[in-house]
Amino acid sequence: MNIKLKDIAQVTGVSITTVSLVLNNKPIRVSEEKRQEILKTAKNMNYTVNIAARTLVTKKSHVLGLIVPDIENVFFSKLTKHLEEICLENNYILLILISNDRLASDLLLLDILISRQVDGIFFCPSNEAFNSSDLTKKLDEIATPVILVDRVFSDSHLNKVYFDNESGAYGAVSYLIENGHKKIAIIAPPAESKMRNSRLSGYLKALEDNNIPQDDTIIYYGDYKFKSGYQIAQEILKTDATAVFSCNDMMTLGFLKAIQEKKKQIPKDISIVSYDNILDDFTFGLEITSVIQDTGLLAQESFKAYQKFIKSKKVKDRILKTKMIERGSVLRITQ
Amino acid sequence: MNIKLKDIAQVTGVSITTVSLVLNNKPIRVSEEKRQEILKTAKNMNYTVNIAARTLVTKKSHVLGLIVPDIENVFFSKLTKHLEEICLENNYILLILISNDRLASDLLLLDILISRQVDGIFFCPSNEAFNSSDLTKKLDEIATPVILVDRVFSDSHLNKVYFDNESGAYGAVSYLIENGHKKIAIIAPPAESKMRNSRLSGYLKALEDNNIPQDDTIIYYGDYKFKSGYQIAQEILKTDATAVFSCNDMMTLGFLKAIQEKKKQIPKDISIVSYDNILDDFTFGLEITSVIQDTGLLAQESFKAYQKFIKSKKVKDRILKTKMIERGSVLRITQ
Repeated sequence: MNIKLKDIAQVTGVSITTVSLVLNNKPIRVSEEKRQEILKTAKNMNYTVNIAARTLVTKKSHVLGLIVPDIENVFFSKLTKHLEEICLENNYILLILISNDRLASDLLLLDILISRQVDGIFFCPSNEAFNSSDLTKKLDEIATPVILVDRVFSDSHLNKVYFDNESGAYGAVSYLIENGHKKIAIIAPPAESKMRNSRLSGYLKALEDNNIPQDDTIIYYGDYKFKSGYQIAQEILKTDATAVFSCNDMMTLGFLKAIQEKKKQIPKDISIVSYDNILDDFTFGLEITSVIQDTGLLAQESFKAYQKFIKSKKVKDRILKTKMIERGSVLRITQ
Repeated sequence: MNIKLKDIAQVTGVSITTVSLVLNNKPIRVSEEKRQEILKTAKNMNYTVNIAARTLVTKKSHVLGLIVPDIENVFFSKLTKHLEEICLENNYILLILISNDRLASDLLLLDILISRQVDGIFFCPSNEAFNSSDLTKKLDEIATPVILVDRVFSDSHLNKVYFDNESGAYGAVSYLIENGHKKIAIIAPPAESKMRNSRLSGYLKALEDNNIPQDDTIIYYGDYKFKSGYQIAQEILKTDATAVFSCNDMMTLGFLKAIQEKKKQIPKDISIVSYDNILDDFTFGLEITSVIQDTGLLAQESFKAYQKFIKSKKVKDRILKTKMIERGSVLRITQ
């Protein structure tokens, strides 16, 4: 059965225009009760927007693309989920592609999305992309609107939506310093993304502002994945570091696994501040202090940036603030 | 720079055919050393398959689609990741879509993928789809090859790849019974998918075979998500159940969170067997006995099924076996 707006209008006793405006979430003078009735009727009748028909009318495909580096990383799976939900609310379909953090895939997947007639692309580039001009050159040539999300090229003219990573990291490390820590190891983002390693910059700046000398022997580069956190933990536990700043939650999980195996305790043996704050559902009895990156907000602002761009073509970066949540994973060191 | 097979052949001193066969992982008589050199050269030169050109030659798009109900569920994010990797190894791109477990989305997303010229579709239908004939009817009309993955319509003529859920559940519950438990609650898959609730069937069969009467007051229906496990835990803790069979790991996580809040202990206060075995990276100090569903194997077998289908059009279901891993989350009850 192919349900049309007309059918819903008939059942609910309103005009087709009213149904259309309500289902598309457009401003309209209608009681909340009636609005709910229309939405419920549409749902019960299994009404779905006829995207093909709409494409003919608007010349838009109402399909957007998203390229993410790693879907196993909970940060990206949550971001993907939120973005998909916002797209659906706005009658867009989201096509998702995974790059495995490979530049070659970035280049290929952009072509795939463009050839599949997407109206716009949300793009979290691979780490590799920051070492090469291949991608930025390609992005310059693309007519499809591209919104850089989370990972951004600072010199790109594209619309960017991202968190202020330097200030997030600065806050995390300052917090450890305030708690008396001086030997603070870092599990940093990949070395290859040095040119935009803003979490490392925030770490270094916090040390400098507190007159703590930089110690390269306790600076470690991970790859945002569980395993690198696990491996680096083995090294950190051999040093005299009393605290760790871990630059994402997946590496923190790896770190915690190693800590548990070595029968060490947090914060008794070593303190930790993590980044992302997405471990709540997963850790039991371990309360990790963390810099919060709100993936729902990131998704929302990215979608808004897309909407604004297609209307006005005006580009303004959206730099989102992080917050920090204090929990029990940091020990106060007093002398 | 657009790298061609010719360029790689020139650098490595072999024929274009040799390069093509090696890069496509086809049988060819060439030393392992030379093979590695060709692969490395291709990688260093950032060679990527020219999918557009290939499409012209083969009339295939080399793009496959995947529809999953929930990307936050670690089972599906792992399955997605594995499937994407296998596709890439075989020079296919995987377009991923999320249905949010909604039948209406299933119907729409199939159209989206078909209109985007995918060669085939891996499809994990929504739970809602099992209450309606809309989807099976639609699937009957689709010319694009569809492989049903994990969630399958038993009466469908489509190719199916799935785990033997009934025997998996039977094993889990039998294990609890062997350990002396008689009051075993179940956090079952959604009630709406009753007609194919094979994990519930396995639970009931194990009770029956062991002369334990079915107790409907401790049968709970979840929705595979964290929150339902958390909510159902509150109810279970009010009963005299000594053990729980939780039908997926996301609900187990919710259950564990509630247990922790109530200061209860596993297995001292209540025993648990879970399903999926994907919590290893996430739980510390909690070792959960679980039925193993190998998402890598599921992805592999699904891809094989697709390859076989396009070659021979012969369809044979692939029913994968689960295993069980025993850990400390079950208490032996002796009288």
